[in-house]
Amino acid sequence: MSNMREIAKRAGVGIATVSRYINNTGYVSEEVRAKIQKEIDKSGYVPNALARAIFTNSSKTIGLMIPNITNPFFNQLATVIEDRLNEYGYTIFLCHTEDNKDREKEYLEVLKSHRVDGIIASRAQLKEEYLNTKIPVVSFESEIDQSILTISSDNYKGGKLAFSHLYQRGCRNILHIKGPKIFEATELRYKGFLDKAGEKNIGIDIVEFETDFNTKKLEENLKRIKNIDKYDGIFVFNDIAAATVMKYLKKKDIHIPRDIQIIGYDNSFICELLYPELTTIDQNINEIGDLTVKLVLELIDGKEIEIKNHIIDISLIQRETTRD
Amino acid sequence: MSNMREIAKRAGVGIATVSRYINNTGYVSEEVRAKIQKEIDKSGYVPNALARAIFTNSSKTIGLMIPNITNPFFNQLATVIEDRLNEYGYTIFLCHTEDNKDREKEYLEVLKSHRVDGIIASRAQLKEEYLNTKIPVVSFESEIDQSILTISSDNYKGGKLAFSHLYQRGCRNILHIKGPKIFEATELRYKGFLDKAGEKNIGIDIVEFETDFNTKKLEENLKRIKNIDKYDGIFVFNDIAAATVMKYLKKKDIHIPRDIQIIGYDNSFICELLYPELTTIDQNINEIGDLTVKLVLELIDGKEIEIKNHIIDISLIQRETTRD
Repeated sequence: MSNMREIAKRAGVGIATVSRYINNTGYVSEEVRAKIQKEIDKSGYVPNALARAIFTNSSKTIGLMIPNITNPFFNQLATVIEDRLNEYGYTIFLCHTEDNKDREKEYLEVLKSHRVDGIIASRAQLKEEYLNTKIPVVSFESEIDQSILTISSDNYKGGKLAFSHLYQRGCRNILHIKGPKIFEATELRYKGFLDKAGEKNIGIDIVEFETDFNTKKLEENLKRIKNIDKYDGIFVFNDIAAATVMKYLKKKDIHIPRDIQIIGYDNSFICELLYPELTTIDQNINEIGDLTVKLVLELIDGKEIEIKNHIIDISLIQRETTRD
Repeated sequence: MSNMREIAKRAGVGIATVSRYINNTGYVSEEVRAKIQKEIDKSGYVPNALARAIFTNSSKTIGLMIPNITNPFFNQLATVIEDRLNEYGYTIFLCHTEDNKDREKEYLEVLKSHRVDGIIASRAQLKEEYLNTKIPVVSFESEIDQSILTISSDNYKGGKLAFSHLYQRGCRNILHIKGPKIFEATELRYKGFLDKAGEKNIGIDIVEFETDFNTKKLEENLKRIKNIDKYDGIFVFNDIAAATVMKYLKKKDIHIPRDIQIIGYDNSFICELLYPELTTIDQNINEIGDLTVKLVLELIDGKEIEIKNHIIDISLIQRETTRD
């Protein structure tokens, strides 16, 4: 702040005037603007975001809570969100919760103490803590509370599409590998898949995995599948888990898609690294990122917006693990 | 700050005393501590990192520049660095430069204006800008300047190990797919590989790829390889590119490792998702992360440390794409 004071002194104006100019928070005459800018140029002064934050109550930062940045879906989403926020001059505080409530709680305290302007929480597990903060919050994937904006992709429809795709391709002995119960998103995929199967009177075998990303654990979880060769179609709750299933089948010399057809979920970059390339459900990360940023900025600007659950449409991307 | 002032008032002490207590920057008597804490508890006051930053000149934040958080190597490194910094109460400003100088420059300004305590720059392209900032900087992978601490893994040795591994397994017609020239790390892998081949008088064919991560572009770059089936060993500059090469070979029904043996680089999680699993060079992300954090914190504490290039040892992880 001393920096701003010196500039005020040299320009022969008050520090409040300099702050109005730098933070563009009020009228400053052309003549004075010129004076101040001249001193700023001379001094090589970098506006101090901390001082500005205290002047304007805006730190130009957003806290982003994600479960895990090594998970391709979430780091691709983080990339989109960061790019968009960047256009508006916001920087991200990255907080990866590892789906751990205590970590999430700690991070929330850090974000509050850094006076972030807004929080984008994905797969949030806290409730009261978000309700009690005065910071604008947008939630992705899990609904924290009816009073907090939620954005999620249409996981229920994703599950239904996955079933129809396998059914239309002749699959009748179908396995669904579902995600951990705690994840709303994968629960909805599971429900959509089952409901659609019910319409066709097709029974579905279910195996639940304990992790969405830990590759070692995924390998262990594969042991829960009893004689996999009896199936002709498998819908897996995410792409990473689907990749481990594909490897498992190839080791058993089961041909994909001739013997067993497979659908993953997320359309992350690994789909195209696999052989055969993985058919999957695309969550439209760009649309999710655009809307999340748009809404959190509107909340920050104090706009009156309807608090509701925005559901982003999904689509099935056919590649080589299902038949034409 | 008003918050802290109120607490000082209620506790009947000076604001400087409250700040000494909250920021633990000087002596406060037991009795006074108790008074202040009581008021803090009553007020539900959250220490304001911004105010603290101005009091103590420490924002408890570190800027982390990485090229791309969707690249498994860099997001795994970011995860380790963030975890370690977290233990010391630091939060990360995540800046992904996309190897773009202008983005890097913009981010550096943001970090300066947010008064980060330190910067960890990976694959940095700027020089003067880092030299001119008074913020402690630790560089990973690219040497910015002799006056700035650099940490890198032993990429030259990695290249040498890769050649020896293929040579010992009978490869004599060898292709190296190298990374873009601008990346110091992949240039060193290339040099180490060639030097070792020279010792054995083995000529190496070289194909340069234009990207380290963009899967679409990697697919295009594959076209640069003329009749790939004449090779019996391929060393690829990173795991992602190696995965696209594996897919390309499988489409041509070339068996890995019987017909062609392959080595990737990074030991990222995708190695174990591939079939066969990818033999690769492990960069020891944990050791890199530990040392980077240790050094940046020592710089922040003003410790006298030797400014040099720390080179972290690497190791080869044999999986299924090379023969026993």
